[in-house]
Amino acid sequence: MENQVFELQYAMDTFYFLVCGALVMWMAAGFAMLEAGLVRSKNTTEILTKNVALFAIACTMYLICGYEIMYGGGYFLSGTDNVSSMTDAAIAEVLAGQADFRNGVEDASLPYSGASDFFFQVVFVATAMSIVSGAVAERMKLWAFLAFAVVMTGFIYPMEGAWTWGGASVFGMYELSYSDYAGSGIVHMAGAAAALAGVILLGARKGKYGANGEIRAIPGANLPLATLGTFILWMGWFGFNGGSTLQLSGVGVANEVASVFVNTNAAAAGGLIGALLLAFILFRKADLTMCLNGALAGLVAITAEPADPTPFLATIIGFIGGVIVVVSILTLDKMKIDDPVGAISVHGVVGLWGIFAVLLSDSDATFGGQLVGALTIFVWVFVASLITWGIIKAVMGLRVSEEAEYEGVDISECGMEAYPEFTGK
Amino acid sequence: MENQVFELQYAMDTFYFLVCGALVMWMAAGFAMLEAGLVRSKNTTEILTKNVALFAIACTMYLICGYEIMYGGGYFLSGTDNVSSMTDAAIAEVLAGQADFRNGVEDASLPYSGASDFFFQVVFVATAMSIVSGAVAERMKLWAFLAFAVVMTGFIYPMEGAWTWGGASVFGMYELSYSDYAGSGIVHMAGAAAALAGVILLGARKGKYGANGEIRAIPGANLPLATLGTFILWMGWFGFNGGSTLQLSGVGVANEVASVFVNTNAAAAGGLIGALLLAFILFRKADLTMCLNGALAGLVAITAEPADPTPFLATIIGFIGGVIVVVSILTLDKMKIDDPVGAISVHGVVGLWGIFAVLLSDSDATFGGQLVGALTIFVWVFVASLITWGIIKAVMGLRVSEEAEYEGVDISECGMEAYPEFTGK
Amino acid sequence: MENQVFELQYAMDTFYFLVCGALVMWMAAGFAMLEAGLVRSKNTTEILTKNVALFAIACTMYLICGYEIMYGGGYFLSGTDNVSSMTDAAIAEVLAGQADFRNGVEDASLPYSGASDFFFQVVFVATAMSIVSGAVAERMKLWAFLAFAVVMTGFIYPMEGAWTWGGASVFGMYELSYSDYAGSGIVHMAGAAAALAGVILLGARKGKYGANGEIRAIPGANLPLATLGTFILWMGWFGFNGGSTLQLSGVGVANEVASVFVNTNAAAAGGLIGALLLAFILFRKADLTMCLNGALAGLVAITAEPADPTPFLATIIGFIGGVIVVVSILTLDKMKIDDPVGAISVHGVVGLWGIFAVLLSDSDATFGGQLVGALTIFVWVFVASLITWGIIKAVMGLRVSEEAEYEGVDISECGMEAYPEFTGK
Repeated sequence: MENQVFELQYAMDTFYFLVCGALVMWMAAGFAMLEAGLVRSKNTTEILTKNVALFAIACTMYLICGYEIMYGGGYFLSGTDNVSSMTDAAIAEVLAGQADFRNGVEDASLPYSGASDFFFQVVFVATAMSIVSGAVAERMKLWAFLAFAVVMTGFIYPMEGAWTWGGASVFGMYELSYSDYAGSGIVHMAGAAAALAGVILLGARKGKYGANGEIRAIPGANLPLATLGTFILWMGWFGFNGGSTLQLSGVGVANEVASVFVNTNAAAAGGLIGALLLAFILFRKADLTMCLNGALAGLVAITAEPADPTPFLATIIGFIGGVIVVVSILTLDKMKIDDPVGAISVHGVVGLWGIFAVLLSDSDATFGGQLVGALTIFVWVFVASLITWGIIKAVMGLRVSEEAEYEGVDISECGMEAYPEFTGK
Repeated sequence: MENQVFELQYAMDTFYFLVCGALVMWMAAGFAMLEAGLVRSKNTTEILTKNVALFAIACTMYLICGYEIMYGGGYFLSGTDNVSSMTDAAIAEVLAGQADFRNGVEDASLPYSGASDFFFQVVFVATAMSIVSGAVAERMKLWAFLAFAVVMTGFIYPMEGAWTWGGASVFGMYELSYSDYAGSGIVHMAGAAAALAGVILLGARKGKYGANGEIRAIPGANLPLATLGTFILWMGWFGFNGGSTLQLSGVGVANEVASVFVNTNAAAAGGLIGALLLAFILFRKADLTMCLNGALAGLVAITAEPADPTPFLATIIGFIGGVIVVVSILTLDKMKIDDPVGAISVHGVVGLWGIFAVLLSDSDATFGGQLVGALTIFVWVFVASLITWGIIKAVMGLRVSEEAEYEGVDISECGMEAYPEFTGK
Repeated sequence: MENQVFELQYAMDTFYFLVCGALVMWMAAGFAMLEAGLVRSKNTTEILTKNVALFAIACTMYLICGYEIMYGGGYFLSGTDNVSSMTDAAIAEVLAGQADFRNGVEDASLPYSGASDFFFQVVFVATAMSIVSGAVAERMKLWAFLAFAVVMTGFIYPMEGAWTWGGASVFGMYELSYSDYAGSGIVHMAGAAAALAGVILLGARKGKYGANGEIRAIPGANLPLATLGTFILWMGWFGFNGGSTLQLSGVGVANEVASVFVNTNAAAAGGLIGALLLAFILFRKADLTMCLNGALAGLVAITAEPADPTPFLATIIGFIGGVIVVVSILTLDKMKIDDPVGAISVHGVVGLWGIFAVLLSDSDATFGGQLVGALTIFVWVFVASLITWGIIKAVMGLRVSEEAEYEGVDISECGMEAYPEFTGK
């Protein structure tokens, strides 16, 4: 009987991880649709190609070396027989004295399939990389971007992941109890830092900023697609935050997972309302793209601590995220940092807010710990990315030709239009 | 050991609720895509904005007061520590004598996380509200709609929910054993009643009904989007109906959940075939929009009792729903009730059919009980909505200016086009 | 207590099946979006109608007779009380001696709800049929296609399914241990064989192949939609392959399910990279449609054995699938077999590769067994389909008129355009 209860628990926790992982994988579709909806039609095929290819590259590089760097789990080149992070010996140990598998989350040997853990982690690295593609859209060479994806997903992200979630205590982050539940900093701000480095080296799109300092709006070609992408991300985020509890099978952790779902939803709602209201005050219009970025900002803001806040506090944390994202998008445009989809604001600036919002509900977290964590992640990813983008720029160039940019990168990079019959060329 | 088995069961039922809730949340994307696909391109940004904003408003209002009104669960302003509807004392009681947690569904204290219950319920109220947006599309002011959403999700829907699922026996519905498993009446017909009240006060779109009584078809701008929306709703409905069993963890309830999935799918298939065939008989064409509405009609029809029918009966209930929806859409148009997406027919008229279809398989339900339930829900929601819409009309007006309607509400309400490059303006 | 553990296990395995089935149902949306994105706008409404209608037909025909033919499970016209494949007597037996329900997968009486098994199987038959619609797009009569769907889903697919998964040992496939985990052959190659028969009788689209042997590219109208479809299929495939383990509730099977998720994802990534690289070598462009077909090819390739390979081997199996699909699409075009979406290459040619890729990791499978299995499935489905298509051609004709093809089948078959405002007619 004990054996059977343990088997059920193992199966339940494994399945929970797989379901959450599938939801996070689905976020890749969300980013693809969001970005494809917010760029111009002439650059749509290319952004779609980048999104599908970066997902494939992320999964493959994380398998080759990223997971090993981040968690040292022995997955590298190993078969499925060896991937369970709980060994047969450990299982036997648990069965002898049941007490300790309640605390399995803290153990090195988790009571669920190691392959399910890999699956959950591998889709996270793809998320971090998806953030980059939107910010550099409409002017970056496709192969330069994919080259960066190899380095980012195989090395840059796994390194900072190792220092935090991986438990390696480089720079003392771990000791300072830097607290980041599902990755406002580790995933979202990291992706934004890599994007920012790319945008700085790449420069703005032609025509975005006029000679006299005016900022030209470049509207996205397909807003239903962007809205769909936002809904997909909203849904996938339940897996992103919910799975980060790492275990389901007990009254305590199940309550925690349920709180995470409630708070994730509440923060997204709050973020949307915050952005809707502020944009209306500023522009006297119900600005759909700000609403979408507001919802995503709410989600990013709650990601560093989605379990502890009350649903009301979660709504407020999201609301503030929604306000910040509107201000940030307008400010970055004034600084001529050209981010076609607002990814740096949503994931970077609001990610930073999320890191410090932890202090509102988690009494174990400290301002110093969060600050050192945020700085370490940002500096590492930004500098490593700057170097990587710089090398790529030197070797193959980052930016398409002026003519290709004018004609659209779809033709120059992919050889096909996204909507050949709609745009009347 | 007993403790552990209980913990597993608690976790399993909680997770089941969360998965089903995430599927219902996904229905919000389905409504958004369906409605965006069925309106004209000049009104697309606005319908998308309404859909994302109503979801955020519904989640927030239900948190502020709706859930409290409907279930009195003490969620209002309470933290996650207090939201579990099963107290520690109750858990201890269950562990002392296991017999009663098999019957937990009937108890006030359910053996799963209260937050998971809230999550499942909060996405239902959003569904009810999503039904409204389609019917009033293309001519209603955005802020008037959002003002109504506040009242509908915070008060009108929770009130009738309290009288039925909430267990409060106002008007004797509960005693008369009004039976509505997942809400053909409580959610779908309620949404349609609110929509009907709005449509009556709002009037038809300019040009829809000619001076000589002719009815002009106004085709939707993007049918793949409408089809995607229907598939999303179809998928999400597995959570909507499947989760309404409220518990998974036993042979009996697991069989029931599985029946609900099979019957929900069968009814959707039946509804699609019914609408396809009738529309072909009438128009000699395979009418895609009627197929989509037919599938949704099948889903609405089975929602009041998805567990008891055989799969064949479910197919037939859906088929009849599909036939009804075609007739209803044509009839409402003759009555000059202008519903751009057919929401009143799909959710209202077929919702009524669903309420009475319960009698085909549930011998406990009575005609009188279903009739009183249907009347109470309809009269309450229709009258309360009429008053609410009326007040909004008096204060800020319901309808955009004629010029804005002609130019499209996207520019006047949202300041941006949905497809700026496709429509050749 | 024993009773309760069994109830939990039963519920868990049932829920696992339902979640996987819902993901496979979602693949229907994926096929619809993929195909709608890859055809021209004038044929989009029709392909959408085919996709939603075939799904409804498949679900209804499989309920009427398909499931009964394939598994003989007594579902035909039976109510939900009788559908559990585990009888009350069997449940009592299990509870008396727990040992054997660990091996339930091998038993006739599986320890989960029979309705959940039906739900999982019914969405598989829809997948097989969805493969056909893409290949015959843009020129086949809608009602001819739906007539074929009735025969395919009610008879042709269930027959070959009975010979393999159903356990009926016609042609000795079962004895030869033909091994096909989730259906590279039984579902995907079968769908492609039916499609090939249809394409041969139907002929190529007007203008596809010039008089001088030149092949004209006919670009799809909406690549974001095709990309979305691919992501949906990728996500749904976790249910397709993951659910095929048939049981979750144990350390061994849970590890197997987790491996299936990891390998399914790895193979899709590998396939995408393989197609991206080969297409770049051939065309010097990052060809998005080849990337999408590459990902799908990776998924098809791993489907016959997603559990045994290491993740690296899975990546390689997928990569080879991605290379094969590019070569196959180019080759079929040279043979003037006109398949607008590449379905025959993705599901047929790569399905065949998947059948033999089993030999790389499953030492129980034999070349002879796989060969006989592949031949039997192909010959049966191809010949039965050829006869069926032939009869339909004689009775009602397969192909729309030349004028209808020129104007687009949307108007002639469905009476409405998919994008009335975008195409400037």
